[in-house]
Amino acid sequence: MGEKSEQKKEHILGCARKVFVEKGFRSVTMKDIVEASEISRGGLYLYFSNTAEIFLEVLKRETEADDDVFSVSISEDATATDILLLFFKEQKKELLRRRGDLSIATYEFYFARGREERENHLRDQYDAGVRILKHLIDQGIASGEFYEVDSSVFAGNIMLVIEGLKILSRTRRISEKLVDTQFAHLLQQLCMEDE
Amino acid sequence: MGEKSEQKKEHILGCARKVFVEKGFRSVTMKDIVEASEISRGGLYLYFSNTAEIFLEVLKRETEADDDVFSVSISEDATATDILLLFFKEQKKELLRRRGDLSIATYEFYFARGREERENHLRDQYDAGVRILKHLIDQGIASGEFYEVDSSVFAGNIMLVIEGLKILSRTRRISEKLVDTQFAHLLQQLCMEDE
Repeated sequence: MGEKSEQKKEHILGCARKVFVEKGFRSVTMKDIVEASEISRGGLYLYFSNTAEIFLEVLKRETEADDDVFSVSISEDATATDILLLFFKEQKKELLRRRGDLSIATYEFYFARGREERENHLRDQYDAGVRILKHLIDQGIASGEFYEVDSSVFAGNIMLVIEGLKILSRTRRISEKLVDTQFAHLLQQLCMEDE
Repeated sequence: MGEKSEQKKEHILGCARKVFVEKGFRSVTMKDIVEASEISRGGLYLYFSNTAEIFLEVLKRETEADDDVFSVSISEDATATDILLLFFKEQKKELLRRRGDLSIATYEFYFARGREERENHLRDQYDAGVRILKHLIDQGIASGEFYEVDSSVFAGNIMLVIEGLKILSRTRRISEKLVDTQFAHLLQQLCMEDE
């Protein structure tokens, strides 16, 4: 693909992202994306054949950007507790963000396709979260910071609480206090110094 | 409203329910409901002026039916542990049900309106769950069955895990084992005899 085509594709994806943030996924049509990006219908179909294809491409870029952010923010001598606190802080920020993200569109996309699709970004994100937290809890147990919990089950519990808070935050207003109280509860069950 | 009108309204709501179960909320149009219920467009508008109005009416009936089921299934000499186990059993059944319910349509409805709407069925359902569980945990603590946890925070924790499992089950396949393990984890933190 030439440089100009690459630019046009980026332009389409940028405009499409705004449409998905605004309208979710299920009710978005190719016509919406044609209008948002101010190109011709034929022009759009040169690059993408349906809204699902566009959405997956938008989501892919978003996820890559997220990974970059996470990898730079942890210093090398951080304890397991430090990292867990940082993780909760990041999650809290995302939970309390009012709008402008793809979470609702992502839910809507996987409502329709999640059970059949082989690629499932929501599932991968959750599974990766459980894996990382399990590893972190194992480290905290080894270093004597954490109680000897079942790290796999506990990691799942933390991720489910976060998923619960996330869906709550997208379907109603949630308070900062709710997030703080629940994260403090999880920390208290895990960290010895928090008792 | 006459008896015949009442019947016609019931007919529309029954057909609309099927449409919402099948297609969610956001992409459903009045035309879909006209077609599903095989009445005229003018006939439909005699009863309802938009899909949101129809959806809320369908949801209201559904919730009333649910409440009936819950109130008959608890015997009078049940302990707090019995009731909690029964609650988890009911939740598990709902989580593993493959299709045919309004959960996805309800999410989609409140994605668009949850933060503004004064009436919010999802919020009320969650808040009622927390209230009932808090009361139950207090009873269990008083009877010596449960540890002396912060019942309000713990009730929130249980509801969030359930919300997390629910959104997972609607966007991917979840295993019975995941549900069992997480509920066992919650029970173990609460019930003395489960240690």
